[in-house]
Amino acid sequence: MSTAYSDLPVVRYEGPQSTNPLAYRWYDAQRVVLGKTLAEHLRPAVCYWHNFCWKGEDVFGLGQTVFQRTWFAESDPVKAAHLKLDAAFDFFARLGLPWWCFHDRDVAPEGATLAESNRILDGLLEAAARKMQDGKVGLLWGTANLFSNGRYMSGAATNPDPEVFAYAAAQVKHVLEWTHRLGGENYVLWGGREGYETLLNTDLKRELAQYGRFLTAVVEHKHKIGFKGSILIEPKPQEPTKHQYDYDSATVHGFLKTYGLENEVKVNLEVNHATLAGHSFEHEVATACALGIFGSIDANRGDEQLGWDTDQFPNNHAALVPAMLEIIRAGGFTTGGTNFDAKVRRQSIDPIDQLEGHIGGMDTMARAFLSAAALYESGQLENAVSERYAGWNGALGRRIQAGASLDDLAAVVHAQGISPQPRSGRQERLENIVNAFV
Amino acid sequence: MSTAYSDLPVVRYEGPQSTNPLAYRWYDAQRVVLGKTLAEHLRPAVCYWHNFCWKGEDVFGLGQTVFQRTWFAESDPVKAAHLKLDAAFDFFARLGLPWWCFHDRDVAPEGATLAESNRILDGLLEAAARKMQDGKVGLLWGTANLFSNGRYMSGAATNPDPEVFAYAAAQVKHVLEWTHRLGGENYVLWGGREGYETLLNTDLKRELAQYGRFLTAVVEHKHKIGFKGSILIEPKPQEPTKHQYDYDSATVHGFLKTYGLENEVKVNLEVNHATLAGHSFEHEVATACALGIFGSIDANRGDEQLGWDTDQFPNNHAALVPAMLEIIRAGGFTTGGTNFDAKVRRQSIDPIDQLEGHIGGMDTMARAFLSAAALYESGQLENAVSERYAGWNGALGRRIQAGASLDDLAAVVHAQGISPQPRSGRQERLENIVNAFV
Amino acid sequence: MSTAYSDLPVVRYEGPQSTNPLAYRWYDAQRVVLGKTLAEHLRPAVCYWHNFCWKGEDVFGLGQTVFQRTWFAESDPVKAAHLKLDAAFDFFARLGLPWWCFHDRDVAPEGATLAESNRILDGLLEAAARKMQDGKVGLLWGTANLFSNGRYMSGAATNPDPEVFAYAAAQVKHVLEWTHRLGGENYVLWGGREGYETLLNTDLKRELAQYGRFLTAVVEHKHKIGFKGSILIEPKPQEPTKHQYDYDSATVHGFLKTYGLENEVKVNLEVNHATLAGHSFEHEVATACALGIFGSIDANRGDEQLGWDTDQFPNNHAALVPAMLEIIRAGGFTTGGTNFDAKVRRQSIDPIDQLEGHIGGMDTMARAFLSAAALYESGQLENAVSERYAGWNGALGRRIQAGASLDDLAAVVHAQGISPQPRSGRQERLENIVNAFV
Amino acid sequence: MSTAYSDLPVVRYEGPQSTNPLAYRWYDAQRVVLGKTLAEHLRPAVCYWHNFCWKGEDVFGLGQTVFQRTWFAESDPVKAAHLKLDAAFDFFARLGLPWWCFHDRDVAPEGATLAESNRILDGLLEAAARKMQDGKVGLLWGTANLFSNGRYMSGAATNPDPEVFAYAAAQVKHVLEWTHRLGGENYVLWGGREGYETLLNTDLKRELAQYGRFLTAVVEHKHKIGFKGSILIEPKPQEPTKHQYDYDSATVHGFLKTYGLENEVKVNLEVNHATLAGHSFEHEVATACALGIFGSIDANRGDEQLGWDTDQFPNNHAALVPAMLEIIRAGGFTTGGTNFDAKVRRQSIDPIDQLEGHIGGMDTMARAFLSAAALYESGQLENAVSERYAGWNGALGRRIQAGASLDDLAAVVHAQGISPQPRSGRQERLENIVNAFV
Repeated sequence: MSTAYSDLPVVRYEGPQSTNPLAYRWYDAQRVVLGKTLAEHLRPAVCYWHNFCWKGEDVFGLGQTVFQRTWFAESDPVKAAHLKLDAAFDFFARLGLPWWCFHDRDVAPEGATLAESNRILDGLLEAAARKMQDGKVGLLWGTANLFSNGRYMSGAATNPDPEVFAYAAAQVKHVLEWTHRLGGENYVLWGGREGYETLLNTDLKRELAQYGRFLTAVVEHKHKIGFKGSILIEPKPQEPTKHQYDYDSATVHGFLKTYGLENEVKVNLEVNHATLAGHSFEHEVATACALGIFGSIDANRGDEQLGWDTDQFPNNHAALVPAMLEIIRAGGFTTGGTNFDAKVRRQSIDPIDQLEGHIGGMDTMARAFLSAAALYESGQLENAVSERYAGWNGALGRRIQAGASLDDLAAVVHAQGISPQPRSGRQERLENIVNAFV
Repeated sequence: MSTAYSDLPVVRYEGPQSTNPLAYRWYDAQRVVLGKTLAEHLRPAVCYWHNFCWKGEDVFGLGQTVFQRTWFAESDPVKAAHLKLDAAFDFFARLGLPWWCFHDRDVAPEGATLAESNRILDGLLEAAARKMQDGKVGLLWGTANLFSNGRYMSGAATNPDPEVFAYAAAQVKHVLEWTHRLGGENYVLWGGREGYETLLNTDLKRELAQYGRFLTAVVEHKHKIGFKGSILIEPKPQEPTKHQYDYDSATVHGFLKTYGLENEVKVNLEVNHATLAGHSFEHEVATACALGIFGSIDANRGDEQLGWDTDQFPNNHAALVPAMLEIIRAGGFTTGGTNFDAKVRRQSIDPIDQLEGHIGGMDTMARAFLSAAALYESGQLENAVSERYAGWNGALGRRIQAGASLDDLAAVVHAQGISPQPRSGRQERLENIVNAFV
Repeated sequence: MSTAYSDLPVVRYEGPQSTNPLAYRWYDAQRVVLGKTLAEHLRPAVCYWHNFCWKGEDVFGLGQTVFQRTWFAESDPVKAAHLKLDAAFDFFARLGLPWWCFHDRDVAPEGATLAESNRILDGLLEAAARKMQDGKVGLLWGTANLFSNGRYMSGAATNPDPEVFAYAAAQVKHVLEWTHRLGGENYVLWGGREGYETLLNTDLKRELAQYGRFLTAVVEHKHKIGFKGSILIEPKPQEPTKHQYDYDSATVHGFLKTYGLENEVKVNLEVNHATLAGHSFEHEVATACALGIFGSIDANRGDEQLGWDTDQFPNNHAALVPAMLEIIRAGGFTTGGTNFDAKVRRQSIDPIDQLEGHIGGMDTMARAFLSAAALYESGQLENAVSERYAGWNGALGRRIQAGASLDDLAAVVHAQGISPQPRSGRQERLENIVNAFV
Repeated sequence: MSTAYSDLPVVRYEGPQSTNPLAYRWYDAQRVVLGKTLAEHLRPAVCYWHNFCWKGEDVFGLGQTVFQRTWFAESDPVKAAHLKLDAAFDFFARLGLPWWCFHDRDVAPEGATLAESNRILDGLLEAAARKMQDGKVGLLWGTANLFSNGRYMSGAATNPDPEVFAYAAAQVKHVLEWTHRLGGENYVLWGGREGYETLLNTDLKRELAQYGRFLTAVVEHKHKIGFKGSILIEPKPQEPTKHQYDYDSATVHGFLKTYGLENEVKVNLEVNHATLAGHSFEHEVATACALGIFGSIDANRGDEQLGWDTDQFPNNHAALVPAMLEIIRAGGFTTGGTNFDAKVRRQSIDPIDQLEGHIGGMDTMARAFLSAAALYESGQLENAVSERYAGWNGALGRRIQAGASLDDLAAVVHAQGISPQPRSGRQERLENIVNAFV
């Protein structure tokens, strides 16, 4: 079987000194750090959509197809989907990464009815299951595409038309069950249409309630079928809609609390979604960890000058060290992992560009993790933070935490003549410490 | 008594055709709309800080004082504070607006200890109470300044030093009690230092817990002293800190849920804070209303090209109609109101500029309200929205809301062959309808 | 002949009180203001691409086709193009606006070679010429699409491959000649691919020189064929590329100066491009006017919360008054006009939505113009500005303008003890004056 | 003499393995790379304003003084200025960096008249000249503060009042002459007030002409006094004004062309100003180099989530490699250098924080330069770029550059059947190559 990727080598680790553009320089999968291999820590995954479905049309509809692949040329859609599946697993094998991710509509074309769509999908996922039998690549997560088809134009769960809600529910049922059958570690919901274009035609309160009902039904179904993986929501502030309800980690947490789902659902955090929401990625990770809903990550980067989701491969490891440190502090991934929700630039039209994009991204994540792990092991930041808050272990700190009233505290302040003096936050020193590990 | 404003006339309503720059053209306080006067609907307030404390230094520390006022020239700080108070109430009288707002440190200088600071403040607020006896101007809200003094450099409630927490608690106690005594309608907390500059020196989870404890103590004290007004949090995403915990309405709501305070605390929403957080103002209002925590507003505007809080007077009434409509739909203000958290531009150095800034702002808010009220009364948008979601009153909609499972819904979809077709959202028509009322 | 728009009425002016959603409320084409009709002042145009070529796919490739039109369903591309042309002129007739605009690839599909593409285009434009014979709609501008086809992926004039430059030159030649033949008032170049994705693979200096050469050749050809219209460049900072060379008015001006083209080329300014570049629209207009390169405008608006080109219909007339005032001050349009480079939202799938989008946009522009004209006639702003700079008509001002040296001026300052005092800029008053005309 | 910095050690290079927080790990001043020492390549400078003038007030006026230094406590302003000068040169000595920079008002307080201000400044700069006699630290640039005093509220050169223009001219004369006398390498103009707050009160065209006249007078005076250094303009898009005329490199270039100053004036580019203008720093450097106006840099960084000039110390060397590469390609600095226009965070209140801020910043710049130099020497990027544009050395490329017309090129395309095919831009590979040197 020859695919677009057949001529490319299997990528191997060769170390930082390698000048081979098709080797890993930092991602040594079996290297043990903090008690686990890099592969176990990072749990890297390749996504289906950007790699095998995107034809190189421009964002914004301003540019036509530029990627030439056999499956785009094949006119029979089911045959094309099988060609694509073959190529995808061939690509996974070249990279040697242990996980993949998909949307239902990435893998299989739609039929005339949902039943027919399900049957076509079944055929493709049966084939995928056979390819996965050798155990080399597992399913990090599956998900249903509830945004491309025109029927979802005005929302899936939050559509003004309850038939769309029902259709979406039926679609999720099928993909959640397949995710379970394929041994998926997580099931993801990205609410790209769960938002609004204008408040003028929107009943915000009603739509939030619809969304809460939908998510509850998904959680109930997970338990019904015995799926042990995590249900993940993927925050994004806007794009394609003007405003999306899953804006960021804090917003999702408040939503989960409202519907009593904070122990059932976690978040899949994407770098570029964080920055579009006005946050650093480490902020989103730290917030999700503090709120107990951290699940998985979509590794990519945005462009600091552009206001849309560019989904570029990560290439600045220094910038990712703070987020990696937060993940390490929080105990690392459980069911989650590092999915490359990243695509080559449109001008990178050759199959080899895709390979090099993943190699660079993988090395960036590995190098960031290694830096963060060494920093963590040094204890330098951990000690500085502990020391900074040490006062909270003293008498006054404990009394406050135990519930002192304003009256209590005013009495203490007046009695003791408390007049606190500022202490340096030492930000520059801490930044220099981080750089010593980069 | 002669003040900076003594030569200015009392501003009166003269109608849209007036060419008098010192008259209201839209704010006819006693005009009855939707069953109440405009003054009752809008509850407009003048703030102390921007008007009487700011000396016209540049933001960013790049420009020196340019405002010449008697109280800035007086070297005795307590005398200066009384001169300022006289001028402030004179200014309120010129504008004829029914409410004012203050921070403790706006009104009175600090002393060497908190006790002395409290005594100085007492003297000034006693004087204010006497000025308020004629009932012409009431206190919309009071608040403690927990951000200017160097002791709050690294946070008030969220400081690494528990002594700062205690000091802040004692300060809030005093101002909350004075707010109660002055008949204040609300007590506001703006967490300008409750955030972080860098995650490298920050224990995010601990700081959130500190903040939860602080807010709980404030609510407990409110009940203890019998204050019937609302406790309001004022969301702002950043500035002065890199990240503030009260980022936006949704974030505050999640925080309140975590600490069981969602029925005790509401939000004071500022236009420019909303836009800095990446939201439209109407989004923040609609979200707070949907989540049941809408309280009050700070009327101002940002500059679309600038990334900081410019606090300009509102001057585009059309842009405010959607937010006004959300407020009307939610039943309007109860304890809240419309505080002009706005300042003249630095080059507007004369007292008359302050008067004209407020006149323009007041007219803008009044005109926006009148447009929104007429739009609301026409029922055109309300009907369009109801009709858009009408399907949710049908059998399938009711079944979903009652808790249909994924299995149930999949069965319905397959049995009925449901294949929903998109319907136009009619955004352009609705925008044109709004414009017919602007 | 039945088209998508056949069932829609011809839109007529009915005045501000009309409740007919298919009537103009402000655009009274024949109303005379400042010596010309509104139609003569605004010179409004309907564009081809957003209205008849876009199928309602999502930006970002996340959503499929939702617009159902006969020409999208027709499988023969030339027949489809003729159906589209029929519909377009039918739509123009419904709106009654006097101008249209097109790209070559909007109107006609490409053939296998440029020669064949030209022949197909000739067929369509011959048909368009026949439709234009009644004189009801003229061509505001034509342009060649140098961005959609994959060959332009890495630039047209600025491509690393000179064959692409040559191909683009040949394409522009054909469309420029057709624009001349159709009586076009302007020829526009939008450099959507004239920029870079990454500096790592880019020779910036060389690409600028290529672009200078290309533009020079276009100007030379214009003169050769006797085209009397204007050549316009359309500034845009980014999207689709990361950085576009025609960033904004000031950048284009510097570029034109470098190649000696500042008297040959003007700018076509778009509202949403201005805001993406970090400017207000009035800034871009004022800058272009001050630099002598103002040409035409693309009327639309962006979304203040979104970082991409949303191309929405203008709907806030107050926000457009300052730009209209700058245009009036500069003497108004000559060859330029007001092109609606705007599209309905994706959920607005019906033909009537397109009509209502244009009606709202047209009314917004007309109302903004009427406000600005009345403001201008009042002389209130003009007088305030003149008075503010009056000192420059005095002795010192004239001496400076005549070329006083630093030595001269230091001598004056010391001799006269000059110590200038600040004067209020009166921004709030001027804003209120503007609002009196909105 | 004891200063705030007396207890701090002299910072020395100890290499990447050093764990001494007060040592350079990358800045080995005498290390020779590309034929010059690192000190000669980078020409690092310490600025006066952020280090010795800022008292730790918050940006935005929300926080009070937190830095305790002897010169802030001294009540006699001239004595305080001498204490500050002593401390500054002590600080320079600890860091061992070869250059410094100042504004006149940083160094000396203002007197009642300009003449008195000049006399006070003379006293301080005489003292500075004596401190510089040992040759250890030279003056990279001097500049006049034309923005802090209230007289400049509405502009210096672009003020509506010609007296302000004259005053500014007299002030610049004095500082330019002192810069010359102190052996300064450059004289900088930062036009923080040369812009507008609102177009409503602004005559843009007139103000640009005033600014052109001012800059011309400065250049004339430079030649008159025989100053051989460079005149530099420092682009910044906004802050403190809403819009500044020196927006970015391209805008400044166009302005210089308009007044025939493009060979007389260069730019001083700041990282954070670039990002505020919507550009990457490497874009600004590459543009200035391509346009022939590159002069010097202000090294710092902004915060990606904040919309104002945070002036933080650079701490991500990887992010600076592309800009360093552009500087190397353009031949490096001549009179320019690397000025740390950076300040510690407000919470970093101790003198040692300032030292560590500079150490981290210096190491970041040195490491970025070393990476860029190695990358440059490898020739990998240079070769890739040359190869990408190789076609322009062929027959068609040469013909185009020689001035082929549209007719010529159309004839070629048709005759040869030119149909260019896209070629991969290889962005991911190039990014990976860069990372191999980081």
